[in-house]
Amino acid sequence: MTRVTTFTNTRPVRIEWGDCDPAGIIYYPRYFAIFDASTALLFEAALKITKFEMFKTLDFAGWPLVRTHARFLKPTRFGDDVMVASAITFGRSSFDIEHTITHNGELCVTCEEKRVWTVRDADGRMKSHPVPEAVLEKFALPPSS
Amino acid sequence: MTRVTTFTNTRPVRIEWGDCDPAGIIYYPRYFAIFDASTALLFEAALKITKFEMFKTLDFAGWPLVRTHARFLKPTRFGDDVMVASAITFGRSSFDIEHTITHNGELCVTCEEKRVWTVRDADGRMKSHPVPEAVLEKFALPPSS
Amino acid sequence: MTRVTTFTNTRPVRIEWGDCDPAGIIYYPRYFAIFDASTALLFEAALKITKFEMFKTLDFAGWPLVRTHARFLKPTRFGDDVMVASAITFGRSSFDIEHTITHNGELCVTCEEKRVWTVRDADGRMKSHPVPEAVLEKFALPPSS
Amino acid sequence: MTRVTTFTNTRPVRIEWGDCDPAGIIYYPRYFAIFDASTALLFEAALKITKFEMFKTLDFAGWPLVRTHARFLKPTRFGDDVMVASAITFGRSSFDIEHTITHNGELCVTCEEKRVWTVRDADGRMKSHPVPEAVLEKFALPPSS
Repeated sequence: MTRVTTFTNTRPVRIEWGDCDPAGIIYYPRYFAIFDASTALLFEAALKITKFEMFKTLDFAGWPLVRTHARFLKPTRFGDDVMVASAITFGRSSFDIEHTITHNGELCVTCEEKRVWTVRDADGRMKSHPVPEAVLEKFALPPSS
Repeated sequence: MTRVTTFTNTRPVRIEWGDCDPAGIIYYPRYFAIFDASTALLFEAALKITKFEMFKTLDFAGWPLVRTHARFLKPTRFGDDVMVASAITFGRSSFDIEHTITHNGELCVTCEEKRVWTVRDADGRMKSHPVPEAVLEKFALPPSS
Repeated sequence: MTRVTTFTNTRPVRIEWGDCDPAGIIYYPRYFAIFDASTALLFEAALKITKFEMFKTLDFAGWPLVRTHARFLKPTRFGDDVMVASAITFGRSSFDIEHTITHNGELCVTCEEKRVWTVRDADGRMKSHPVPEAVLEKFALPPSS
Repeated sequence: MTRVTTFTNTRPVRIEWGDCDPAGIIYYPRYFAIFDASTALLFEAALKITKFEMFKTLDFAGWPLVRTHARFLKPTRFGDDVMVASAITFGRSSFDIEHTITHNGELCVTCEEKRVWTVRDADGRMKSHPVPEAVLEKFALPPSS
């Protein structure tokens, strides 16, 4: 069986005064807060439940980041309304997400992140675990015939 | 002339994972980031321009906080969709804003803040200044007859 | 028995670039992150264990904030080395902390906060609880004779 | 002339409660705030002036990030006292910094970042510019004979 397990979610974000530094441009750690929320919202778009509900109803203890790689092409400023597009590709116990931020159609930031699906072991510690089938099914596009 | 210079703006906010602490509830400094953005959005609702544009088109150098007083009645958690209502009352060179956060109709947080309208003096320093008439007019409700 | 249960801790903090906003002064929500850490460090100074260890070794589930009231007298800027003094006064199940921030001897910020000592109830929920005697003893000054 | 233009600075950082998320481990965007401050402190260690003073005394308008690449090997938790080591290598108008975070001698995070040295052009915009000689000299190690 081949299952398509890529999925994209897009959302608007306003860059706020408090996101910006004395140079008047975004303080870049704030981008990672935006990306982290975008990852959660991508899952919410596919699963139709929030990350909060994922903890309650799925075999899930978080998706710690393994690595992230961002390129900053063009700064953004407070007052900018940007678009954040996030595309996921699943591995077995991990997944890759590629985020892009555009402003007025211009690419400003790209970011690739790898995360691991985790569950709690008997001692309460997080350990990696295959992404549950029930999750993958929600992301699966209908097979083309 | 009596001019009504109170005005209220309401907006939805999602409490995110990254807003929360190891107790699973919001890390309270994040509330102040929410309030700060709410103040800017209240002005945007009245003036129809962003804070960024305010710097460009008005005699304006920011609205530093003089004091803030918050009460935390009920914690919020990641995944909560809350409502933030912000009401402004103008003084001469300052204004008071009262923010409230409700979740499912329950009051969670109240916050009263006082800010000063500033402009740049000849040396580039921020100094307090009466709120411009052009700003007050936008906030003014039509007089009831 | 009369026991003195006030205690003060002082620490230096550098205001960083990332703490500041496009006006070049501190973004005030950052003050609350400084105060929150200062509260933890005050307890660490008295108990000689970190907040992390407090969760492990004490009847303790956190000290949620009930209210906070801050006054901003003078802005601070990135590169400023400020002093944060934090003084605690205990109630039965709550405590008050007064933080002050000074820069070159000038008072910049004052903040009064009230927090509640909590433990977990049988269902894992946080509930208020008298501050343990073992904690109060560590804060107690030797009685003057 | 060959000039050695690498330089390393190391500093201790306490991971605080407010740096951590509901999983009890650090919220990874906070690492980038730590790295950003570490870059500034590395320059301060070499130049003996703060970043604030750099703006006043050097041909300098900031060092925007071009890209960053971080790997997360082991989580850190509130209460952890970690060491952040930052090593710089200069190009002509840019520089690379490699940050590592260790806890109890174990490597937890690595991060490579590239930044550009900028100055303000006649219109006040940031543009890249060769790192000033006066800066490079401060970083230069004495030539081995």
